[in-house]
Amino acid sequence: MTADLLASLRPEASGAPASGIVELSKYARAAGDVIQLWVGEGDTPTPSFIYEAATRSLAAGETTYTWQRGIPELRQAIATYASDLYGRELSPERFFVCGSGMQAIQIAMTMVAGPGDEILIPSPTWPNAPAAAGLRGATPVFVALDHGNRGWQIDLDKLEAAITPKTKAMFINTPSNPTGWTATKEELAAILALARRHGLWIVADEIYTRFVWTEGSPRRAASFHDVREDGDRIIWVNTFSKNWAMTGWRTGWVEADPSLGDVVENLIQYSTSGSPVFVQRACAVALERGESFLAHQVAKARKARDIVSEAIEATGRCRFSRPDGAFYLFFGIDGVTDSNAAAMKLVDIAKVGLAPGSAFGPGGEGHLRLCYLRSQEQIEIAAERLRTAIPLL
Amino acid sequence: MTADLLASLRPEASGAPASGIVELSKYARAAGDVIQLWVGEGDTPTPSFIYEAATRSLAAGETTYTWQRGIPELRQAIATYASDLYGRELSPERFFVCGSGMQAIQIAMTMVAGPGDEILIPSPTWPNAPAAAGLRGATPVFVALDHGNRGWQIDLDKLEAAITPKTKAMFINTPSNPTGWTATKEELAAILALARRHGLWIVADEIYTRFVWTEGSPRRAASFHDVREDGDRIIWVNTFSKNWAMTGWRTGWVEADPSLGDVVENLIQYSTSGSPVFVQRACAVALERGESFLAHQVAKARKARDIVSEAIEATGRCRFSRPDGAFYLFFGIDGVTDSNAAAMKLVDIAKVGLAPGSAFGPGGEGHLRLCYLRSQEQIEIAAERLRTAIPLL
Repeated sequence: MTADLLASLRPEASGAPASGIVELSKYARAAGDVIQLWVGEGDTPTPSFIYEAATRSLAAGETTYTWQRGIPELRQAIATYASDLYGRELSPERFFVCGSGMQAIQIAMTMVAGPGDEILIPSPTWPNAPAAAGLRGATPVFVALDHGNRGWQIDLDKLEAAITPKTKAMFINTPSNPTGWTATKEELAAILALARRHGLWIVADEIYTRFVWTEGSPRRAASFHDVREDGDRIIWVNTFSKNWAMTGWRTGWVEADPSLGDVVENLIQYSTSGSPVFVQRACAVALERGESFLAHQVAKARKARDIVSEAIEATGRCRFSRPDGAFYLFFGIDGVTDSNAAAMKLVDIAKVGLAPGSAFGPGGEGHLRLCYLRSQEQIEIAAERLRTAIPLL
Repeated sequence: MTADLLASLRPEASGAPASGIVELSKYARAAGDVIQLWVGEGDTPTPSFIYEAATRSLAAGETTYTWQRGIPELRQAIATYASDLYGRELSPERFFVCGSGMQAIQIAMTMVAGPGDEILIPSPTWPNAPAAAGLRGATPVFVALDHGNRGWQIDLDKLEAAITPKTKAMFINTPSNPTGWTATKEELAAILALARRHGLWIVADEIYTRFVWTEGSPRRAASFHDVREDGDRIIWVNTFSKNWAMTGWRTGWVEADPSLGDVVENLIQYSTSGSPVFVQRACAVALERGESFLAHQVAKARKARDIVSEAIEATGRCRFSRPDGAFYLFFGIDGVTDSNAAAMKLVDIAKVGLAPGSAFGPGGEGHLRLCYLRSQEQIEIAAERLRTAIPLL
């Protein structure tokens, strides 16, 4: 009976992959007292100056339906933040509030991906992007990032060679989860040139742009905003989650040419029909008053990156280079071919939980992902445990 | 350039219909000082005993990622509420929290509807259901409700005659928005028998079940829960919006056989990846302590239904019968063929905003929808204005 129910569902739905981290996280939670470095979030709750805006809004009765595209105040706040960050005037009409960065990806994929389409995705990758393409009936086509002495790199020739008449879009995540690959401005220009030449869409996921470790401590990573012109086929997806410790708020935004506004609004209408006003009030405060909190987050991550990198280097058994961006260390371990088994063994012997690389698409197996957006104290304990335990794998 | 961007999107996305209420609502907002009866929500903000649970949760730092299926406490609260309401033991494993009733519909449609599939939908209908089917590449097939002396009725022979080899599911909304049609238990049994005979899924939208005006003041309308057996292909969609004045919270739930839990969880993962914990805390309180508030809402709607019905009857120009459920009056006006124009004229001459019937699928044109979940004072003013103005149309 049960099998019959499952079998009668649409294959796009029943075939949607489960997260490759589930097994590890269940195992680690059951083990108890494990340092949790497998999830992509920090250890700081949302600061009070942000959440109190939601509290005030609730008390003011802002609990009814609202604008599908987001309240005007938040769209303006995003535009102001983005105009400043990218050094170019960006209209509020470009920004559309939605229910998480994930929902932004779902919306963007719905716009550009459907049955018969191929979507190019550099890999290793955050698995939810190809899964979202698959749910639209499209085929994710993985393009392997190279891993050498300079860390993870994109091979633009390989990217172009993967283009077929069916290719409709490229999903470009920079700085990248999980690899930390961070595109240069020149690479983004080259990717955009490919898109223009072949009439492809770019879904640009630059959510980690503030977490960048390249020389000179820039305020952000290179962005398609640095190279785009009006009329380019780019849809950005973004989130409040990482910068402002708001992972649990499930709010993000889509950025697209204003001419696509009605389409984005309709797709919001038919998914969550807008975001709670009281949540949006908090998001606006995060943008308007959150820079010093964000600077603190970035500094914490920078220090943690060095601490864990030194420990992993000290094992003498790991293949990696210090990432240029995001807040993950994605490293291979000599001799490890089953990353899920290795991650579970590290739970047992080190009481540290890392995400298995097998969860991150082709090229991920044999690696582990460590989220280092953690307090210095906790990261020092975890680093020391890993330094001792990894040679025992 | 702009046209080029739009033209290069997927047709499912660019073809998603805009809401048919947008023009009227813009017109009415611009007019100012209009009684807003075109939206499907009440005039009461979320009560403090509910929203204060969110405030406490925020202060406690519940702002990180959480269970994709919903926090265990809320799933248990839904199960307790539903077990009591339907008089049968329902396990928490059947319930999946998601970002609004709309998202529940999106998830259900993703499970059962795809390219090549036909989805039967009695019409007039809430337009977001067929739109969600269309976004999956499926074809909504409208089955006209009959409108006679007994109000809106379903013709089961017509429903069965609409089934083709491509039919995959039926979307059954009872009590219905906009018509108020409320299925009897016998009708639900007959619809379920059809589904069983033809191997169809039922997407059951019973969100208005507590707003029922049939004889004996029952606590709820008839439900597929009254007739189903294990193994039946039924997915319920539900929401906190209407019962507990939480339209702005964007939280609902899917109910399905536990064997489909992994699929539902994956579809939540790839849409919003879960709902905020602090929102879920408030939802749990609504279920656990919200019955007297809900009773007040229902009593208010019952009184308002009588007030507006008498006024509309008094015009002598309207075709309708008092609805058996939900909180809308959906009435035809003799001589009116352009409901959008009529609604705008009522804004001008009566300062009352109603939704044009054309927004509600085949059979809707020529009608207006009035939401009567309003204070007695406001509904009396609106009723009096409409009594005077409708004969002038």
